[in-house]
Amino acid sequence: MIRCKQKRPSADKTRHTILQVATRLFAKHGFAGTSMRDIAQTAQVSLNLITHHYESKKNLWKQVRLNMANKFEHFCGAKTRQEPSDLKMFLERAVSNLFGFWQKHPEALRILNWQRLEAKQKSLMITSGSYSLHLQEVIGALQTRGQVRQDVDADIILLLIFSTIHGALEESSVVFQENKAHKQKTYLQLAADSLYKALKT
Amino acid sequence: MIRCKQKRPSADKTRHTILQVATRLFAKHGFAGTSMRDIAQTAQVSLNLITHHYESKKNLWKQVRLNMANKFEHFCGAKTRQEPSDLKMFLERAVSNLFGFWQKHPEALRILNWQRLEAKQKSLMITSGSYSLHLQEVIGALQTRGQVRQDVDADIILLLIFSTIHGALEESSVVFQENKAHKQKTYLQLAADSLYKALKT
Repeated sequence: MIRCKQKRPSADKTRHTILQVATRLFAKHGFAGTSMRDIAQTAQVSLNLITHHYESKKNLWKQVRLNMANKFEHFCGAKTRQEPSDLKMFLERAVSNLFGFWQKHPEALRILNWQRLEAKQKSLMITSGSYSLHLQEVIGALQTRGQVRQDVDADIILLLIFSTIHGALEESSVVFQENKAHKQKTYLQLAADSLYKALKT
Repeated sequence: MIRCKQKRPSADKTRHTILQVATRLFAKHGFAGTSMRDIAQTAQVSLNLITHHYESKKNLWKQVRLNMANKFEHFCGAKTRQEPSDLKMFLERAVSNLFGFWQKHPEALRILNWQRLEAKQKSLMITSGSYSLHLQEVIGALQTRGQVRQDVDADIILLLIFSTIHGALEESSVVFQENKAHKQKTYLQLAADSLYKALKT
């Protein structure tokens, strides 16, 4: 009984360490550029132990992405799951959630990019989870209530919101170099303002 | 004399073939994932000939990116180098140029993404060429003339324009799958409209 209780946390800890190391290496070198051997060496565990916990490199990659998707859902969902009745508030929250998450998890943004480039691994897109569906539903609801223009489909509107935020994080390395915090704040205000003006009826 | 004249085009053709093959392979597998041997085999030339023309893999990558930057400048510059006096016209042109270029050259978008991920190769960013400077100057001029809001710096405004377009191309695979042409047109109109409303005074 005691042995059992002691074993559990240790196995969980090993699983967690492997997942963390794999996330870091996948983010740095992509799926193709990372070997199970690299992960084993960096995590200081045996190759067998990784296979025991995660079967294959493909499955490990999938778990890394699922873990990120969960973090994303948790980060955004916890703050916004109550349905906002006001377009301005909705946009400010969405912009700040999306930007906040990708900025807090630069490794997630890199993995998303690797996924786009390494075509065979694109079966699971991180952003098209329940938070995206939630945003799309809110846009639809705001359209029905006459607060958002109805001549453009909700999925196209969502694409504009995502682009404004993701695009900036991709392009921003040069622009945000000086006065970083100030420039980011200015950009986010401009983005929310621009989206509001574009979408309101 | 005759020999000389015959040799030239042939060497140029070889250089061109190598550059084309390298562009295709770099776009597909990135810098690290492409070997000089792969390029030689696919282009059906000897490794020596590639080294003769392009010295090293790093230099070949640089030439591929320079070639793309030139294409980009040519594509956008030829149509827009006359300074537009009207914000709406300026935005519609910029949006259509940027989207048009990246859509026509998906390999360029992939190489841009590889460049972001393979940090050591980021010394030359494709988009920060003379066309970007040109756009920034026009925005500055329109600000001076009171047509564009002056509370946000021109570089931040340019970032919003780039994000709206690049972001969409990155995210669009899912959204643009059905009714592709129609959805793209709707998106571009929404983007230009959104930028206009956000930037005008």
